[in-house]
Amino acid sequence: MNEVNNSGSCIAAYRIFGDKTTDFSKKAESIAVGLTVGSWTDLPQARKQAMEKHLGRVVQIEVFEGEGPERYADVSIAYPDINFSRDLPALLVTVFGKLSMDGRIKLMDLHFSESFMSAFPGPKFGIEGVRSLLGVPERPLLMSIFKSVIGHDLPELKEQFKQQALGGVDLIKDDEILFENPLTPIDKRVPACMEAAKEAEQQTGQKLLYAVNLTGPTFQLKEQAKKAIELGANALLFNVLAYGFDALHALASDPDISVPIAAHPALAGALYPSPYYGIAPSVLLGKLMRLAGADLVLFPSPYGSVVMPKEQNLAIRDVLRSTKLNQEYASGELQPDWTLKPSFPVPSAGIHPGLTPWIVRDFGRDVVVNAGGGIHGHPGGAAAGGRAFRQAIDAALQGRSLQDFAADGHLELQAAIDIWGAKQ
Amino acid sequence: MNEVNNSGSCIAAYRIFGDKTTDFSKKAESIAVGLTVGSWTDLPQARKQAMEKHLGRVVQIEVFEGEGPERYADVSIAYPDINFSRDLPALLVTVFGKLSMDGRIKLMDLHFSESFMSAFPGPKFGIEGVRSLLGVPERPLLMSIFKSVIGHDLPELKEQFKQQALGGVDLIKDDEILFENPLTPIDKRVPACMEAAKEAEQQTGQKLLYAVNLTGPTFQLKEQAKKAIELGANALLFNVLAYGFDALHALASDPDISVPIAAHPALAGALYPSPYYGIAPSVLLGKLMRLAGADLVLFPSPYGSVVMPKEQNLAIRDVLRSTKLNQEYASGELQPDWTLKPSFPVPSAGIHPGLTPWIVRDFGRDVVVNAGGGIHGHPGGAAAGGRAFRQAIDAALQGRSLQDFAADGHLELQAAIDIWGAKQ
Repeated sequence: MNEVNNSGSCIAAYRIFGDKTTDFSKKAESIAVGLTVGSWTDLPQARKQAMEKHLGRVVQIEVFEGEGPERYADVSIAYPDINFSRDLPALLVTVFGKLSMDGRIKLMDLHFSESFMSAFPGPKFGIEGVRSLLGVPERPLLMSIFKSVIGHDLPELKEQFKQQALGGVDLIKDDEILFENPLTPIDKRVPACMEAAKEAEQQTGQKLLYAVNLTGPTFQLKEQAKKAIELGANALLFNVLAYGFDALHALASDPDISVPIAAHPALAGALYPSPYYGIAPSVLLGKLMRLAGADLVLFPSPYGSVVMPKEQNLAIRDVLRSTKLNQEYASGELQPDWTLKPSFPVPSAGIHPGLTPWIVRDFGRDVVVNAGGGIHGHPGGAAAGGRAFRQAIDAALQGRSLQDFAADGHLELQAAIDIWGAKQ
Repeated sequence: MNEVNNSGSCIAAYRIFGDKTTDFSKKAESIAVGLTVGSWTDLPQARKQAMEKHLGRVVQIEVFEGEGPERYADVSIAYPDINFSRDLPALLVTVFGKLSMDGRIKLMDLHFSESFMSAFPGPKFGIEGVRSLLGVPERPLLMSIFKSVIGHDLPELKEQFKQQALGGVDLIKDDEILFENPLTPIDKRVPACMEAAKEAEQQTGQKLLYAVNLTGPTFQLKEQAKKAIELGANALLFNVLAYGFDALHALASDPDISVPIAAHPALAGALYPSPYYGIAPSVLLGKLMRLAGADLVLFPSPYGSVVMPKEQNLAIRDVLRSTKLNQEYASGELQPDWTLKPSFPVPSAGIHPGLTPWIVRDFGRDVVVNAGGGIHGHPGGAAAGGRAFRQAIDAALQGRSLQDFAADGHLELQAAIDIWGAKQ
């Protein structure tokens, strides 16, 4: 194992699978050399001196011997910053471009150098910024999703929006599959929904962010975002993986795109679930999303219908919020702290009010409780659904059981528990 | 199973894994409804009439019963075009956005409607166009890759380029991990290499395309491409998956980007190898690349060091070149032929001259033989390495064994066989 090159390397951690014959050290060295200088041992000494600053280095190897023929190793390799430009396509192509096709190998983690990170301002708002826009300094936020949108006309959509807003939700997001369409194009949808938001605010006294789905051709995304904002949109939803992390980075870095961006995980399931291939969720939906500037990040919750194992969920949570992301390796001075603003974790799918205490237990206050069916499916309608969630959040914050709290005259919560139960 | 809606749907084929209790028909229906209108059976009849044109339909289901507890089904679902805009992010997010995270499911195929395809001009050059630029109407083309590029200065790079060009290669591509850098920035690299190409042409009498790596920020890709072309680049290499298919589509559709684009498969291994998750290689590196406009598509060969199973390779070959891509379903009139120009398949990695007859046997004449180590590692140097390949191609086209042909005074081929062998 080589010494760490402290001065400006990004580190990629991989899990590499093999069998009883696999020489993981040799494999790691071949990656470190092959993805940087190309060849090393046969170089003349003078040449080595000139090339050393470009050479990748094996930082860590841990081999796990299984009981069967399968073995694997966790391998970390440092890639000198000098080899790639300071953008995410360059970094990802360097560390996992060709290598992703080299048998069973999964990208498990990424550590960014100070120099690399300096190109990334990160989330424009972050958790505090979103809270400040909403005037909600402490409690978990509540987001709701349209029930169904395709084939609905503008008055229907507006009414659906208003009912959600009346329930006291903090954010409403477009469905990620709502694209530009004749019934509810963005230039009609945004004014109609923002009007509904205003109408609801007169009753609830509460602010609301509407995350409008940013879609269409890549090279028109900035214009489309600015158009949505001019029309009144005060947040954006973005299918990051369909466009690449660099597009998110560019949108988040643009001073004229002056609203929070919520990153949707659409297509992520093609990349993270296999143990043998792809990219770990804490990287894909965690570090890379935050680095690229997502203020809120949606990901499959461990509670609901689309399930992600809880430890993966908590790993996403940690990298979205922590400042100590780069100190997992041996020495404290190896990599810098993250000074980027933290992103709001938004565990999603299959959430009903009865799960709220679990979300708060696992995520604390800095979380967005996100529901679709759990709001629209409430027997009292979407507004009652929103209220049930807000009551559940209050109960969780007060450390009271949902049953107790519901019995205390919180009828919407009681009705929700009656159909969906409350997880014990 | 519903009848096919012929009038404008794109069809996605999935492999869905389950166990003995899985009701695949119910699952398929829930996808078809859930990813389109949201709900169906509980809609009033009048509403159903209005919504029917938006409703997804299960086109085909085939259940495979395994011997163990695992079962799977191949399921095809038609998504009405009316639901999404005519761009690849919209299509992919619709058919595999949320669904990709819904357990073990792999996207196996996509069939595009005539209406959807009408937004895609496809490859600007295609196989014939590339051949025409090179003046090589029939034989397999030969592409070579720089040996190592990181840390090399301009004179070294130019000399490496010239040696490759002197061997009679038709295309030289940048390494996909060569980004903007102080030693060989694009504005110095392109003129230097194109000058080397001209010098070599005076000796070989042969034209050559230099595929310059198009990198950097997403929203500057068009300007960067045009800059490279102004500097003399006559082809581009592009890491499509780092930027998204829509970026490729926009580049290929731009009339000012007047050179062939070679699509590199960097990061593809995060998406295609698992049987349970991701996107099949014939879609990821085949249909989507051609639809988005790649003139040449690199992918891991079944011969060399980075191995992809041969049937997957041949499936990529077929979708890159065939015109009959959409007729695999029941009725001939279901989906239109592909009128897009075909793309050159470029099976890559671990190729040496001894494998050439196998490439020609599997791919025919319309293929690019692509080599790195198999050219630079030749005992006579890169120029001799190129000549060995050209001799191997000639032998294959004449149906002669490499050994015979080499013995006929083709010394470079003989030297290559002596080190790497010739696959029997």
